[in-house]
Amino acid sequence: MPQPLHHSALLTDLYELTMAAAYFETKFDANASFELFIRSLPPQRGFLIAAGLEQTLEYLESLHFEDSDIAFLRRNPVFAHISSDFFDYLAEFRFTGEVWAIPEGTPVFPEEPLVRVAAPMIEAQVVETFLLSSITFQTMIASKAARVVAAAQGRAVVEFGTRRAHGPEAGVLAARAAVIGGCQGTSNVEAGQRFDIPTFGTQAHSFVMAYGEEEESFREFQQLFPEHGVLLVDTYDTLAAIDKIIHSGLRPRSIRIDSGDLVELSRESRLRLDRAGLTGTQIFASGDLDEFVIADLLARGAQIDGFGVGTALATSKDAPTLSGVYKLVDVDTGDGPSCRAKLSDEKATYPCRKQVFRVTDPDGNYREDLIARETEDYFNAHQLLTCVMRGGRRLKASPSVHQIQERARAELLRLPEAHRRLHNPDKYPVSFSRELQSQLAEMRQRFTSVGRQ
Amino acid sequence: MPQPLHHSALLTDLYELTMAAAYFETKFDANASFELFIRSLPPQRGFLIAAGLEQTLEYLESLHFEDSDIAFLRRNPVFAHISSDFFDYLAEFRFTGEVWAIPEGTPVFPEEPLVRVAAPMIEAQVVETFLLSSITFQTMIASKAARVVAAAQGRAVVEFGTRRAHGPEAGVLAARAAVIGGCQGTSNVEAGQRFDIPTFGTQAHSFVMAYGEEEESFREFQQLFPEHGVLLVDTYDTLAAIDKIIHSGLRPRSIRIDSGDLVELSRESRLRLDRAGLTGTQIFASGDLDEFVIADLLARGAQIDGFGVGTALATSKDAPTLSGVYKLVDVDTGDGPSCRAKLSDEKATYPCRKQVFRVTDPDGNYREDLIARETEDYFNAHQLLTCVMRGGRRLKASPSVHQIQERARAELLRLPEAHRRLHNPDKYPVSFSRELQSQLAEMRQRFTSVGRQ
Repeated sequence: MPQPLHHSALLTDLYELTMAAAYFETKFDANASFELFIRSLPPQRGFLIAAGLEQTLEYLESLHFEDSDIAFLRRNPVFAHISSDFFDYLAEFRFTGEVWAIPEGTPVFPEEPLVRVAAPMIEAQVVETFLLSSITFQTMIASKAARVVAAAQGRAVVEFGTRRAHGPEAGVLAARAAVIGGCQGTSNVEAGQRFDIPTFGTQAHSFVMAYGEEEESFREFQQLFPEHGVLLVDTYDTLAAIDKIIHSGLRPRSIRIDSGDLVELSRESRLRLDRAGLTGTQIFASGDLDEFVIADLLARGAQIDGFGVGTALATSKDAPTLSGVYKLVDVDTGDGPSCRAKLSDEKATYPCRKQVFRVTDPDGNYREDLIARETEDYFNAHQLLTCVMRGGRRLKASPSVHQIQERARAELLRLPEAHRRLHNPDKYPVSFSRELQSQLAEMRQRFTSVGRQ
Repeated sequence: MPQPLHHSALLTDLYELTMAAAYFETKFDANASFELFIRSLPPQRGFLIAAGLEQTLEYLESLHFEDSDIAFLRRNPVFAHISSDFFDYLAEFRFTGEVWAIPEGTPVFPEEPLVRVAAPMIEAQVVETFLLSSITFQTMIASKAARVVAAAQGRAVVEFGTRRAHGPEAGVLAARAAVIGGCQGTSNVEAGQRFDIPTFGTQAHSFVMAYGEEEESFREFQQLFPEHGVLLVDTYDTLAAIDKIIHSGLRPRSIRIDSGDLVELSRESRLRLDRAGLTGTQIFASGDLDEFVIADLLARGAQIDGFGVGTALATSKDAPTLSGVYKLVDVDTGDGPSCRAKLSDEKATYPCRKQVFRVTDPDGNYREDLIARETEDYFNAHQLLTCVMRGGRRLKASPSVHQIQERARAELLRLPEAHRRLHNPDKYPVSFSRELQSQLAEMRQRFTSVGRQ
């Protein structure tokens, strides 16, 4: 298996490093807890699927500054007044903290901490940028994939989006997240290699065009890939191409239609294929698909066995960002943790380390979630956050992407259908415990009076 | 300088490799030309800024299959009927072709080829996926950045979006593209190192919250970063924080407001700072900004000297994809190039290798573009595509990001303002030459009659 991509410790925002320098220089010797959560759901979403933890843990385990990184930072005038001791510290820097997280593949909701980092302040701070971009991106894509897969009602969905992803590496990560969300596989071969997930491919229009005759391109391809061949039929004239396949006596595993009226073309193609005895040849569709288009195609009677979904899936096109934040919730300078919170009006956050308690009904269906202090206990509710890293080392081997996909599939069945609707899903009930609410009220009172003095 | 990230040759769609196998096995010995272009502009856009070529050329120069890549492919059952010779070929595979491209930083429009690859068919085909995701992503972000920078009317714009980018690597590439589009710098330190672009940082709310007293956090930070300190004032109460700064006798280079009514808060902050003699302290704003919000803030009299723009910029949130495609335009099996085109109704493309001719008025302002065959010539029009790689090697050293930014700035001034408006810009005139039109018509006739036979 290939190594995970090494990411430089410099892959962070500069302010993480200036703050680190300030903590170091002021001998701010404290442990801190930060929680990563999503502020709110994008339009039309009723749930999210947690994803991206694996890349986060890989990063934390391997995080260090190379000599060249440190030399680069020393040259930055912003650090002109920072002592050499700080850069010596960076040379030894490792992540030694503790991580609690909700397992990948779990349905989650806004304001629920997906990851909690507890570590010496500098360590907990400098990892912010990487953690946010890893967790929010994959969570966004896994959530989108779950919607697309639901719309396909049991038909295969394959992720095809690398070419429109936000750079090549985003394509690899999107493929992983899409499989977590329920896709059968991806077209991205590196994702197949790195994450041991199935890869799929068809033909491009260029292949059909390269051979002077469409029929020749079909015949050559089918001979080389007899069990896996997918013939692309819309380069010139879709139905004429179907007829050519039939008349040539080819029996492809599948044909792909990438343009045109997919309802009409798939129905007529099915008819012609069946009439010719090619009942085993499946019809695969692609071309600007998303969950809404797929639901509409199937409602209008399209005869499609599988979908290739690219752009809309790999970029979560209708909602291409999640409002992920990473907030300080307590600081411990030696005499126990002291809660912290940001109180500015429209972006206030709850203080203190939290746990998410999921309450189910007797059949195991989700009923509601309660966000409470980690020290609280709620009889019979399932605690979603578990400790996954201590002293900077993982506590156990990570699940495979296949296992994570299976978790997501099984857990989603426990989420009532009203929260899974494609359009205007019901809001899943999530509340904060009374103890957290009174902590927030207390902090508000304390800091507002300080602020106004 | 750090090495560019190595990207595996497997970072491609599986069908590129199955088609490669088919070309190899059928001894399809031809050269092919592919052109990469954007089909149409996203909403509200009047132009694009070409970007991403540098990463494309790095990739092409270093492209090769590792033994482990080949072993991985051999295990894939899709290749069961492919000969061992193909895998031996992959072990020797290098990109040996020619690349023509429009320089990064050039304003471009839909349907204009940004990159043309001419190479042995397999080489030209397998690079498709990587090229599309590199060029379309950076072009999209550079174009968005140009809009945000225009809205700021000369005030500094800094890219802050890595935490919401589509994974960490997307953040690095977004930073590069944002600087090309006119941003003064980025918060992303790795981008600073890799591309030699300026980095900026401020403070996080967590820093202010970590110290028990807001004032203490300001004092400590200001002492360590006297010339570069940016104090974040909205953690508890923005105006109270301004008063604390004034009363403490601090003279920060800048303060940052991240929430609240930015018009009101910036005006009142300016007033209080000026009254206290802190006329040199700049006001920096952030928090869900984009070109429309910035234009509105300034129109309503906000007193802001610089903007940190994150999510909306690093994801091009309002238009998070570009319709980039990579199309076969000719094939040469030894007796000269033969034009090719995809003719399916709504996605037809023009055949033959093209050149983009830019026509300017006597003052040098852009008047219109003509897409023609590369063999055509138009007196006085500027040819945008130049040869940048031959035999798989770059013909000259790449420009710096700073030089590319300067090109974009200067070129945009030549684009009439009507095409640069933030809302409903006029469509820039781009047409296809008569020769290309008749080529397309001829192919349509030929292939439709073949298809219908």
